[in-house]
Amino acid sequence: MSSLADLETPCALLEETRMERAIARMQQRMDALGVALRPHVKTAKCVEVAGRQRAAGARGITVSTLKEAGEFFAAGVDDILYAVGLAPQKIGPAFDLVRRGARLKVVVDSMPAAQALAEAAHREGVRIEALIEVDSDGHRAGVPPDSPLLLEIGRTLHRANGGAGLLAGVMTHCGASYECRGEAALVAMAEQERARCVAAAERLRAAGLPCPVVSVGSTPTALFAARLPGVTEVRAGVYVFYDLVMAGLGVCAPDDIALTVLSTVIGHQRDKGWVLTDGGWMAMSRDRGTQAQPLDQGYGLVCSEAGEVLGDWIVNQANQEHGIVEHRGGVAGAGDVVARFPIGTRLRVLPNHACATAAQHAGYVVVDGASVKARWPRFNGW
Amino acid sequence: MSSLADLETPCALLEETRMERAIARMQQRMDALGVALRPHVKTAKCVEVAGRQRAAGARGITVSTLKEAGEFFAAGVDDILYAVGLAPQKIGPAFDLVRRGARLKVVVDSMPAAQALAEAAHREGVRIEALIEVDSDGHRAGVPPDSPLLLEIGRTLHRANGGAGLLAGVMTHCGASYECRGEAALVAMAEQERARCVAAAERLRAAGLPCPVVSVGSTPTALFAARLPGVTEVRAGVYVFYDLVMAGLGVCAPDDIALTVLSTVIGHQRDKGWVLTDGGWMAMSRDRGTQAQPLDQGYGLVCSEAGEVLGDWIVNQANQEHGIVEHRGGVAGAGDVVARFPIGTRLRVLPNHACATAAQHAGYVVVDGASVKARWPRFNGW
Repeated sequence: MSSLADLETPCALLEETRMERAIARMQQRMDALGVALRPHVKTAKCVEVAGRQRAAGARGITVSTLKEAGEFFAAGVDDILYAVGLAPQKIGPAFDLVRRGARLKVVVDSMPAAQALAEAAHREGVRIEALIEVDSDGHRAGVPPDSPLLLEIGRTLHRANGGAGLLAGVMTHCGASYECRGEAALVAMAEQERARCVAAAERLRAAGLPCPVVSVGSTPTALFAARLPGVTEVRAGVYVFYDLVMAGLGVCAPDDIALTVLSTVIGHQRDKGWVLTDGGWMAMSRDRGTQAQPLDQGYGLVCSEAGEVLGDWIVNQANQEHGIVEHRGGVAGAGDVVARFPIGTRLRVLPNHACATAAQHAGYVVVDGASVKARWPRFNGW
Repeated sequence: MSSLADLETPCALLEETRMERAIARMQQRMDALGVALRPHVKTAKCVEVAGRQRAAGARGITVSTLKEAGEFFAAGVDDILYAVGLAPQKIGPAFDLVRRGARLKVVVDSMPAAQALAEAAHREGVRIEALIEVDSDGHRAGVPPDSPLLLEIGRTLHRANGGAGLLAGVMTHCGASYECRGEAALVAMAEQERARCVAAAERLRAAGLPCPVVSVGSTPTALFAARLPGVTEVRAGVYVFYDLVMAGLGVCAPDDIALTVLSTVIGHQRDKGWVLTDGGWMAMSRDRGTQAQPLDQGYGLVCSEAGEVLGDWIVNQANQEHGIVEHRGGVAGAGDVVARFPIGTRLRVLPNHACATAAQHAGYVVVDGASVKARWPRFNGW
């Protein structure tokens, strides 16, 4: 197989040169800021993609599930941060990974979780590193950097294992960066993420507790941070593919996006200006991340088979295996869709949210323009 | 493994007794209306589930992808309707299935598709049955029942193969039923779907063309149809699990829903009344199908581990591996979430859209209350 024309649709295409450019851009930025890059592999869930990130200089990985931790450890990556608050029921599987040699770091943000971890580590004699999650933006989990709880959790983790201690540092994720509008807001949000996480680290140290790791990040804050003093590492995920949400934020351009879904025209409703394709929500995901942005891209922005953005054509509606492509200008803007997009025409669609769209596929067809170079598997599940 | 308490989360639970009740209800209704039931297996994509539907009396299956056709044919089902307009590029794979013995029926709604199919059938000597898709509600694909195009496509299909003919009938799917409000609207929509599809069949017959199959359906119209004269078979999919969209339409009650996602409490933001769980959009899907309904259920309605709806608790926000459970009444309604939902608490969540949520999982944990009975695999992909 050597050409896009031979591919069955729908399928996920990965433009390798765009991905390599994105990896290089992020690594260069982190190098310039003097921090380590720990990519979040939840976007691609693909050993080959993480291999490119590591080859470019990334140190360790971030995961969103213990399944990812196990898969990447089996593929030779041992420095792994599991960045979701550890449920007590997951302590056992996490310890199994540590016993097998993984340098797994886990995250807690409450006393019950810290105590459960400390007690289990003591009982089972397992040395696992724990980070305290800090709330830097009010959007999800974490303890406020100025709260008494921060020190209470810190002491509980540090006292564990007869003083050998589990406390390895602090981490935060500034998901509110996805709602920023404009460069100044992104720069300010990156500084807020940094300052609050570093403040938490300094409070721990001032209380006599160790805090070697100060881990921050999201793709927007990573790329817009002006300076990162006090930070030791940055985590970012979606930059490896980018997507329309990132383009809407000004983090990338649409033609930086490495992931597209190839689909085929299967019909029309000429009077409505509709082009029906076999790329429905099962191929695109139900993610409507651009809905709240100034430019709503529907279920995705339509490109030619070669990958050129066609203009104002979007997948405006989606059923399970049907996409409905429409022109932003409606019937008047569409012209004769039957003549323009005959049945059998191939279209590529840029996704709203690469993490969600990629998860709908079992793997990536790696392409360079119209030429197929490889197939890389990905995995899902827990 | 014998108890919910031993399951790793998140995972998809299937209450077998609810599913069996849903299967019996639909089959009894179709028997009473005197039509065959051809379940759409795209919801569950599970050989065991389809086996229960067939054991209850279903005849044949409907699929949304050729992958489903191949998987179910390999599992012993030969009467298969592929209900998405056939792309020219999929004629080859469809013919392969026919050559291997599948009684595959395909769908066209345009002259280019009909001509491509007729020419390929003639060239390769393959006898495949084709249905013409009829537009009964303006929501997606299909030809209007009163259009000249209906007869043109009919003649093209019938003349194929030297007169042996591919034309097997007409089909329609009234997806607009998902936007109906109230029983009277659903009954009227079911009659509209029936009447327009039967009208198309009668026009073909009046033109001297064969039309043995008249296939209609969606879960809402199937269950609200008062009578179905002229219809030979009904297709419905989501009824096998039901979901909150169906409950919002009045098609089922929340406690009829057979599919839930089991998740674990991993943290809180007490001041906001937030309960954080490990059931994010990767487990629930990004589907927000109840957003446009009178009662928006967020990303899902929260139940106890035993499956009892807790009241006004919904998954109000979702990140990839984080769900944020909130009370509809906000902080005031929530009370002390730390005391009510301690870390480690298990919750079950009813999904908006069973087809989308099920697709996020590799299989189902079949349960009867708190007891685990089996694990059934499902598949995705194309």
